[in-house]
Amino acid sequence: MSELRKDPVMGRWVIISERRSQRPDQFADAFPTVCPLKQPDCPFCAGNEERVPPPIAEILSPEGWSCRALPAASPILRQESRFEEHRLGMFHIAAGVGAHEIIVEGGRHGRSLADLPLQQVADVVLLWERRLTELGKDDRFKHLMLFKNHGPTAGEGTYRHPHSQIIALPVTPARVKDKLDGAKEYFSQTGRCVFCAILERESREKERILWENDHCVVLTPYASRFPFELWIVPKTHRADFPGTPEPVLRGLAEALKRTLARLSRLLHDPPYNFILHSAPLRRPREGFPDYWDTLDRDYHWHLELIPRLTRVAGFEWGTGFYINPVSPEGATRALQETADG
Amino acid sequence: MSELRKDPVMGRWVIISERRSQRPDQFADAFPTVCPLKQPDCPFCAGNEERVPPPIAEILSPEGWSCRALPAASPILRQESRFEEHRLGMFHIAAGVGAHEIIVEGGRHGRSLADLPLQQVADVVLLWERRLTELGKDDRFKHLMLFKNHGPTAGEGTYRHPHSQIIALPVTPARVKDKLDGAKEYFSQTGRCVFCAILERESREKERILWENDHCVVLTPYASRFPFELWIVPKTHRADFPGTPEPVLRGLAEALKRTLARLSRLLHDPPYNFILHSAPLRRPREGFPDYWDTLDRDYHWHLELIPRLTRVAGFEWGTGFYINPVSPEGATRALQETADG
Repeated sequence: MSELRKDPVMGRWVIISERRSQRPDQFADAFPTVCPLKQPDCPFCAGNEERVPPPIAEILSPEGWSCRALPAASPILRQESRFEEHRLGMFHIAAGVGAHEIIVEGGRHGRSLADLPLQQVADVVLLWERRLTELGKDDRFKHLMLFKNHGPTAGEGTYRHPHSQIIALPVTPARVKDKLDGAKEYFSQTGRCVFCAILERESREKERILWENDHCVVLTPYASRFPFELWIVPKTHRADFPGTPEPVLRGLAEALKRTLARLSRLLHDPPYNFILHSAPLRRPREGFPDYWDTLDRDYHWHLELIPRLTRVAGFEWGTGFYINPVSPEGATRALQETADG
Repeated sequence: MSELRKDPVMGRWVIISERRSQRPDQFADAFPTVCPLKQPDCPFCAGNEERVPPPIAEILSPEGWSCRALPAASPILRQESRFEEHRLGMFHIAAGVGAHEIIVEGGRHGRSLADLPLQQVADVVLLWERRLTELGKDDRFKHLMLFKNHGPTAGEGTYRHPHSQIIALPVTPARVKDKLDGAKEYFSQTGRCVFCAILERESREKERILWENDHCVVLTPYASRFPFELWIVPKTHRADFPGTPEPVLRGLAEALKRTLARLSRLLHDPPYNFILHSAPLRRPREGFPDYWDTLDRDYHWHLELIPRLTRVAGFEWGTGFYINPVSPEGATRALQETADG
């Protein structure tokens, strides 16, 4: 059973998950640099379906299935009980309730999301939306995280079969709160959504816009923390990813496939992480009846993509102050000059 | 010239430093896994003093010098001008003024801080205090960061000659602000320093205290984000590291040497970062005359040590919510069972 603990200085929650523990001398092998690519061992490959539990959901294709949601084999959080916070003097502790699902992106091993046919990328995005909508109905959850780790140094893990992950959390994470606070602050000062304002400004300037279609814009954020950091933002204002109309989801799929293909070509299939930032689930907050009042107007879902090209060292850990050796404008130009298919 | 940019959503500053830029295909080699250990090339080795500018400060030893502060060869920030913030519509930009120094920890290559004689570790700590006191007099700076990157995967860089770094910043970094806010909040609720309260509680429980001497306590924080994360905290309350009495500095040196020796033995010389968290420099804030009012009572300097054993992936980036596979109590026990010299 994992535990949630709250840092008494920062107010930040941490998961203590001893099940995932190893002897210290095994850490070096925990994330092998060369991952096994042998298909017969992979539980996500088409033909190996008997190695995993039945899927939670799937999208079918003429060849069988296009993509599917599976329960995580070693879940970080489990759907066992209710979230209950206890105090041990100055410390807070809570049971690690939540959910953890794997979205398997096709049955073929060693193919990345960028290499899949557009229809299959769209199937993955449609399945994300379907699972987030479903998990959002469980009122024990406060936030849903969808993310992908690509490549061993980005934390992909043992099986290099393309997949993304969904984690449902019983608390709102610190960085999500920071984003929400920032967006709310901008809204209270200007009456506008900060993401809409960014899109408007960037569309005028153009120097940080990489690509766009009818539904989504791909841009390098003005204050990029990392080289080639990218955001994909829907053009129409919307706080929640769940409920996004299908044409926008297909627009996201196209933007994602093209962006990943360019990154892969320019940077030689770099490791990367992406995170879908959707609004948190609105649960009534005792004593704060107006807590979520402006959220629908002040927040705007988006996908954040971080190639893992630089190392985070003492300075960044100590300050939250990142040193980025490539300007977002330079990254945009380099990616614009790269073919995407 | 580097640039400081403020993220319009998070309010967080980022350094854009194009001088440090590389062609994308060079990133893989930027942090070599096997570092050159050849002494004749190293500008920090005793005997190669002509390769570097004259030291800013040094502590002498019978053999020549014990440790020395040098200007960084590729400074992240420079002491050129005043800090001036400009607005470009919704974006903020500023010149990258600051300072960047290297503290060379002895003249011998390939020896880590843990291997140095105690007297020499104490010299390093005394030099840290002297340089932070001196840099604190420059009223363009708002915060001083002292940190160490040990090992290539912790961002040590080209020369594996033991050294720490000091960076003087013209703004207070986000994570420092978070810590200050947390400490101030606890103080306003209880009238106590949160670090003093932690020391008192942990001394009663003992399960997360690794070691102590007359002046400092070494503990694993209750909500450790990383396996074997450690804090070294002075027993006597004090917000600023500059001005710390020499006996406490010597106590820190002993705690640091013993802790690093145990970590090295248990985890086979792991990569690590440490960061000294001292209070920010108190500059008057226009319109906030009482801004620093309680800081001397609510904040407490400490050193944070993070072995780099796990990878930060999409979930951590997206949430600021860390998954730690080793409990702090388990880490304390494992380190207690390890000899330190």
